[in-house]
Amino acid sequence: MSHNSFGHLFRVTTWGESHGPAIGCVIDGCPPRIPLSEADIQPWLDRRRPGQSKFTTQRQEADAVRILSGTFNGRTTGTPIALQIENTDQRSRDYGPHALAYRPGHADLTYELKYGLRDHRGGGRSSARETACRVAAGAVARLILGNDVTIRGALVQMGPHAIDRARWNWDEIDANPFFCPDAQAAAAWETYLAGIRKAGSSIGAVIELVAYGVPPGLGAPIYAKLDADIAGALMGINAVKGVEIGDGFAAAALSGEDNADTMRMDGANIMFGSNHAGGILGGISTGQPIIARFAVKPTSSILTPVDTVNRHGQDTEIVTGGRHDPCVGIRAVPVGEAMLACVLADHLLRHRAQCPQAEAAQATSIKNSGHVSQS
Amino acid sequence: MSHNSFGHLFRVTTWGESHGPAIGCVIDGCPPRIPLSEADIQPWLDRRRPGQSKFTTQRQEADAVRILSGTFNGRTTGTPIALQIENTDQRSRDYGPHALAYRPGHADLTYELKYGLRDHRGGGRSSARETACRVAAGAVARLILGNDVTIRGALVQMGPHAIDRARWNWDEIDANPFFCPDAQAAAAWETYLAGIRKAGSSIGAVIELVAYGVPPGLGAPIYAKLDADIAGALMGINAVKGVEIGDGFAAAALSGEDNADTMRMDGANIMFGSNHAGGILGGISTGQPIIARFAVKPTSSILTPVDTVNRHGQDTEIVTGGRHDPCVGIRAVPVGEAMLACVLADHLLRHRAQCPQAEAAQATSIKNSGHVSQS
Amino acid sequence: MSHNSFGHLFRVTTWGESHGPAIGCVIDGCPPRIPLSEADIQPWLDRRRPGQSKFTTQRQEADAVRILSGTFNGRTTGTPIALQIENTDQRSRDYGPHALAYRPGHADLTYELKYGLRDHRGGGRSSARETACRVAAGAVARLILGNDVTIRGALVQMGPHAIDRARWNWDEIDANPFFCPDAQAAAAWETYLAGIRKAGSSIGAVIELVAYGVPPGLGAPIYAKLDADIAGALMGINAVKGVEIGDGFAAAALSGEDNADTMRMDGANIMFGSNHAGGILGGISTGQPIIARFAVKPTSSILTPVDTVNRHGQDTEIVTGGRHDPCVGIRAVPVGEAMLACVLADHLLRHRAQCPQAEAAQATSIKNSGHVSQS
Amino acid sequence: MSHNSFGHLFRVTTWGESHGPAIGCVIDGCPPRIPLSEADIQPWLDRRRPGQSKFTTQRQEADAVRILSGTFNGRTTGTPIALQIENTDQRSRDYGPHALAYRPGHADLTYELKYGLRDHRGGGRSSARETACRVAAGAVARLILGNDVTIRGALVQMGPHAIDRARWNWDEIDANPFFCPDAQAAAAWETYLAGIRKAGSSIGAVIELVAYGVPPGLGAPIYAKLDADIAGALMGINAVKGVEIGDGFAAAALSGEDNADTMRMDGANIMFGSNHAGGILGGISTGQPIIARFAVKPTSSILTPVDTVNRHGQDTEIVTGGRHDPCVGIRAVPVGEAMLACVLADHLLRHRAQCPQAEAAQATSIKNSGHVSQS
Repeated sequence: MSHNSFGHLFRVTTWGESHGPAIGCVIDGCPPRIPLSEADIQPWLDRRRPGQSKFTTQRQEADAVRILSGTFNGRTTGTPIALQIENTDQRSRDYGPHALAYRPGHADLTYELKYGLRDHRGGGRSSARETACRVAAGAVARLILGNDVTIRGALVQMGPHAIDRARWNWDEIDANPFFCPDAQAAAAWETYLAGIRKAGSSIGAVIELVAYGVPPGLGAPIYAKLDADIAGALMGINAVKGVEIGDGFAAAALSGEDNADTMRMDGANIMFGSNHAGGILGGISTGQPIIARFAVKPTSSILTPVDTVNRHGQDTEIVTGGRHDPCVGIRAVPVGEAMLACVLADHLLRHRAQCPQAEAAQATSIKNSGHVSQS
Repeated sequence: MSHNSFGHLFRVTTWGESHGPAIGCVIDGCPPRIPLSEADIQPWLDRRRPGQSKFTTQRQEADAVRILSGTFNGRTTGTPIALQIENTDQRSRDYGPHALAYRPGHADLTYELKYGLRDHRGGGRSSARETACRVAAGAVARLILGNDVTIRGALVQMGPHAIDRARWNWDEIDANPFFCPDAQAAAAWETYLAGIRKAGSSIGAVIELVAYGVPPGLGAPIYAKLDADIAGALMGINAVKGVEIGDGFAAAALSGEDNADTMRMDGANIMFGSNHAGGILGGISTGQPIIARFAVKPTSSILTPVDTVNRHGQDTEIVTGGRHDPCVGIRAVPVGEAMLACVLADHLLRHRAQCPQAEAAQATSIKNSGHVSQS
Repeated sequence: MSHNSFGHLFRVTTWGESHGPAIGCVIDGCPPRIPLSEADIQPWLDRRRPGQSKFTTQRQEADAVRILSGTFNGRTTGTPIALQIENTDQRSRDYGPHALAYRPGHADLTYELKYGLRDHRGGGRSSARETACRVAAGAVARLILGNDVTIRGALVQMGPHAIDRARWNWDEIDANPFFCPDAQAAAAWETYLAGIRKAGSSIGAVIELVAYGVPPGLGAPIYAKLDADIAGALMGINAVKGVEIGDGFAAAALSGEDNADTMRMDGANIMFGSNHAGGILGGISTGQPIIARFAVKPTSSILTPVDTVNRHGQDTEIVTGGRHDPCVGIRAVPVGEAMLACVLADHLLRHRAQCPQAEAAQATSIKNSGHVSQS
Repeated sequence: MSHNSFGHLFRVTTWGESHGPAIGCVIDGCPPRIPLSEADIQPWLDRRRPGQSKFTTQRQEADAVRILSGTFNGRTTGTPIALQIENTDQRSRDYGPHALAYRPGHADLTYELKYGLRDHRGGGRSSARETACRVAAGAVARLILGNDVTIRGALVQMGPHAIDRARWNWDEIDANPFFCPDAQAAAAWETYLAGIRKAGSSIGAVIELVAYGVPPGLGAPIYAKLDADIAGALMGINAVKGVEIGDGFAAAALSGEDNADTMRMDGANIMFGSNHAGGILGGISTGQPIIARFAVKPTSSILTPVDTVNRHGQDTEIVTGGRHDPCVGIRAVPVGEAMLACVLADHLLRHRAQCPQAEAAQATSIKNSGHVSQS
């Protein structure tokens, strides 16, 4: 029940502050003999890395990952995999005035209330820098899931501006700086976010994750349901305020008839007529694509002065300069993917432990209904 | 990492099927010397009990709880508290035809895929009957939290019909069969839901939970954040498809300025200007009211025939007769309250273990901004 | 990390006091489709049951187990298995005077120090009656391990009187009231223990457990080593004061040469020359018989008056009448077997989760060196 | 339930192989505001460090610990403490021939059976080098326990040669290279062990641990008993084959009268007449000194050729050259102390969570009976 560990059989423990010498994680429970080197992890980190466009913080972190244990001759050994990333661009001076004032929307106040002190250099432990470790762990999780499982994420709403789902094209994701699957929306966002950034303001976002090829049977009711674990995993990402599975909140307005995912046989396979459920029933994966969405609040660090108080119990104002993302939701896309990968890898191992025959028997008996049209 | 246990220091393990002889739970980690008898638990169960209005299933379950261990002379002893509720109205015959066909939206298919067999009598383990144990455990959790903490829930949307937040009145909650805080909406829903029920249809709902008086400091970053644990707890309730904290998905559309919860000193206390965050920052409670919402899909059991397949791989149709709630979201209100209570009690113990001084020092230094106006 | 749960993937949660209405346990994580009924559990409980010879307590407990959940049509469903045993012969009056005085060697004092109160009726939660639940869980664990694994226990020392290992004969175990594998020793103990009992005294014992047919690879270094988990499991049984694996304390006096378990090929199999290690190397099973021993202190309840103090801080004397085993180590034999079964079942599932291929590949490649001669 | 984590609320996760770039650990759950720097940890590591006398391996490891996270301005922050120790003297060439042959008594065979591969450089993960992390974590655990708790260890038997308990003198511990409390025995051992070393042989040992000043109430029955957790912790140390609490195996030969730890009032305190129980009753600390012993087998690496087999299924012989301790039990003394400290710190936090009032109330109401004479 460690505070800083995630997962059970695939278990990740992270450590480190944004302005300490390094951050890192220990991955325990990884099956042996999986080919693994830094080259399997680095590309995923590079997707999350700041400083790649004018729409993310201008901090320059190489985010070069190093494997310190758990592999031998290029394969995992079944022992803990220690990953480490040095902090290279820390500039503590950027954060000077925050030593005393509590930045609204940040964890400054609550860390102080809980622990009686805090590392005020850039958020310390509460900094989103920690999410690099999640992405690194997610890369290992993907290797456990294997090539049949594909986990993708997309920004589907920036501020009030949602994409047009009819234009969804996964190939667009890497063609714009927003992980946006709708080329037209991406173009519009470019102008929109430039304005937000110029104004020293910030804006929220919604991210959609899809996992294709997940075998049926993952998830362990009643208190280790797959959707419950995904919800916890995504809500635990910095700045996230909402999580949905399948139709999510829209399901509240539906009738039972409209919400029913009908089934028909298609040869030996079961073909679903829709996927309102988001690929999970009773907390267990159906074999359909798993669909989750999460909402990210606007970056709390803005250039407009905001009323706050300080450690001495005095009223003050704060302007959070530094170098911040105008829409922290963008970089949350690879983080969300990674958390979903970690949840699925953990549940794959859990399922295998309790139901080994099921794993063999299930084959590909579920026809994957398309993802976009239903939700 | 038990599949059927919830929480860590306040830990609840539930067992039982809807059509077995009984259901029950074991509560471990409860502090000693807390006055506890069945009378402390039964009233909460009675709020969830079916058959109390025409808008909930007509099954008649007494849901009488019995304490089998863990108390002595009317006080908790610190040892496991075993609670048991007999199943009295099971009518397995109601479920006959479902033995073979997979009810869409239910866990029939996935239990079979995972385990290779299922107890088809009324959902077996996946039945919402299990939530009675959650409510019982929540009653004990409330005793641990003490009188300073108040946890309330309300139905804020039924189908497409939301309440008017300006009419929010907690006193209305017990004055209608919907736990609705808006008397006018409740009156309209009565007609609306009667129509749904008559049509053999069903409808979804949104529930809002508020916890007042929660001390600051609860929640343990990075992977035991209070909001992450609440999200997992609520998403794990049967039929839930979405969870929000504070402004939730609406926060995605806000600017950083509009989302900032400003602070001012009010004597020795900190007074927040708003509560967009829902009482949690960086995964730790601020001392403000904690606000969470969750969306419940429409009851999957409806009278309209729906396409499905059966165990033999044949196409078929199903009409789920039996006795079902037209809006299962109504009875989810006390269940949601209970899960929130369990999360908070668990984190109270966790916080006390790591930060005993903090607990003493915090006093009531946070002024609770109102709940309704902000969200 | 529940206080009253044991194991991780095969997880047992027990509850109940000796003088409450019942005791019971919830077994979570059991694989599905295993044939299971009360008849699979009851015989193991009967072996532990008191009142079967003059050498165990004369309490008469039927110890009839009832399965309340987790099976359907005679097979496990993968959901929690709730087992319950009613307390039928409680005679609380036997324990009257102990309400105030702390019985030396019992948990009276420490429960009071920890919890500030205690259920003084026969030890309450600390009573050895709880071990019935361990035995019941062990019966289920054996089913998971399957027929290739055999777990046996034997009393190898009573008071100062050890068996002659050259006379070890498993068939004798059920031929005497002591689970003694040496017929000659058993005969001598009969007279010896009758004297102890008549004197109102008590005596300790040493139990040896052997698990045959355990596949290699069980145990997960570094902090879930098989021997560490066995040690914790056995030391946690009431009245146990020492645990050994393989040669145990005798290994301290050996040289490296004498302690080496040599290996030779025997066809495709590895044949060990000895088993000083007790079937575990580096915390992982070798495939040899697993050998563990544990020491049980003399029953603390004796008829000789002993100095003690009471709740009011007064000096007093206590004579623990009631109905007690003169050698509680006897009934610890089936309890030790059960705990070993639970540890092995848990590790089988853990191993399967991380190393599924290993499980298939290992076959029976290790020749089991004999058990008795080496240790 | 991580394989490589130890403890629950005070939780240590270790990683690293003997011949990788570094080893390390992450300590989670440490209370905030405890003064902590490398200087608090290094002295304990220095006690375990090899190469300090001719009786330990001649590898030269600086074992310099570095704190990478979890402190700020010299105090713990409540976030994970990452500790790292570089491997500086690895000489992989020493281990060349072992790549194929399985060293008897080592984990070579079992790692290969479990994982299908192994890092054969000096034991890889199974190397005793990992125990440096335990010692580092133990240093932090001691800080949590505070100055009132003192944990000490002593070598009480080397090979067949036990100390004379009447000569027990804690001041001798640091005056000889064996952590031996009996100066006369230490002198004899010097000659004895020199002979063992010269012969290329090895010998086992027994270590005794005593924790003074432990508050009553630590330990959580039934499955988190303090003695069970100590047993698991000590049995999990490399090469350990037996564990005892209090009188241990000797208790088996005692009568109930002889084993009774009587109590008398001494003013407001309870004074025990003896400490056969080793300071733990019913799995909960009494407030007396906690006494544990563990047996370490002889080092398996010896210069005498031993029969074994190799990866290719061929018979062979092995001589384990390299640089090894002739009595690995010596360096196990600080490791045992550290594990005991970790268990106690974990239980202190657990106890505080469930029974905060007890902690305050208990004061020093138990008179600590002396340690040496009773056991």
